[in-house]
Amino acid sequence: MPRIVDHGQRRGEIAEALWRIAAREGLETVSLSRVAQEAGVSKGRVQHYFASREELLGFTATLLQQRVDARVRAQLARVTSDEPLDVVRALLAGILPLDDESRTDALVGSAFFVRAVADPQLCETYRAGNRLMRDVLTEKLAHARDVGRIAADVDPAHESTVLFALAGGLGESILVGDHTAGSALSVVDRQLARLST
Amino acid sequence: MPRIVDHGQRRGEIAEALWRIAAREGLETVSLSRVAQEAGVSKGRVQHYFASREELLGFTATLLQQRVDARVRAQLARVTSDEPLDVVRALLAGILPLDDESRTDALVGSAFFVRAVADPQLCETYRAGNRLMRDVLTEKLAHARDVGRIAADVDPAHESTVLFALAGGLGESILVGDHTAGSALSVVDRQLARLST
Repeated sequence: MPRIVDHGQRRGEIAEALWRIAAREGLETVSLSRVAQEAGVSKGRVQHYFASREELLGFTATLLQQRVDARVRAQLARVTSDEPLDVVRALLAGILPLDDESRTDALVGSAFFVRAVADPQLCETYRAGNRLMRDVLTEKLAHARDVGRIAADVDPAHESTVLFALAGGLGESILVGDHTAGSALSVVDRQLARLST
Repeated sequence: MPRIVDHGQRRGEIAEALWRIAAREGLETVSLSRVAQEAGVSKGRVQHYFASREELLGFTATLLQQRVDARVRAQLARVTSDEPLDVVRALLAGILPLDDESRTDALVGSAFFVRAVADPQLCETYRAGNRLMRDVLTEKLAHARDVGRIAADVDPAHESTVLFALAGGLGESILVGDHTAGSALSVVDRQLARLST
């Protein structure tokens, strides 16, 4: 009886190999044979799952979105209080590269960025992800204002834009070593404290 | 009498060709022959100025720093008031991709980013540029506080970190089309207005 291979899992393992290459070197050196070598499988095996380099990169972009999404959800699950600003903090922590795994994802995201700007479909994927995050931040900030946790004159949509852009900039600073995970989070905390009543 | 060729200028023209490729496609497809084709010269001509792809990329990183530096200076030169917050705004405007030229530079910068994270020397160039910008922002904010333009309880070093990260995040948003130059500048203006007394 032949061994049953989980197609999705095998594709995932190959994408993980691409991940390690992209995080170290960008997308420049990514090729089907390079990925096969990194994954320790034959090029034919890679081609069984991905017909072309383009298909492999497209799958990786989707996987990246899923991983960021899962990380944000995991941060949210750790919030035990009813405090709306704790939820805002968890959302921002979910998009910051605070550990090795999220750091690798952020580097892969950076490697895809120029490609996303030039590719309308990939660009729309990026924008939809950003929009969703900003919308949820706005909603949580509006709730925080409604229950009197932040000042009545705070504009939730504006603050959501500021906090999201701040997290984006801090993320880059962590990657180059200008911030640690802790110092970046403390910048976020000071911003949130300033909004608090 | 042989025509005298300006070595620096010719190198610059070749780097400009690399620029256009990198802004469109990232660094993936950059090669000496591809750059020669884009610049409309022979590969031998390119090799006369750059011995290798690495040398070409190293020169481009330096040129990128110089261009950002020149743009910040140009923005500062346009400040006609003594208002310290106008200087802060000019510094931030200098690092935002507000027109085609700065947009192209920002895309080239993004293309270099993963490379910079992995390469200690390039990373230090990035960090030194960031440090200089944050230091100048801190100094100008401290001055603004000393002359009573911003509240006495504002921490210049913290605000400089926030504004610099904010500009970084807004820059990415402009590149993917989530912000226009105008809407990004208005986010900056609102942040500065909040600091004002």
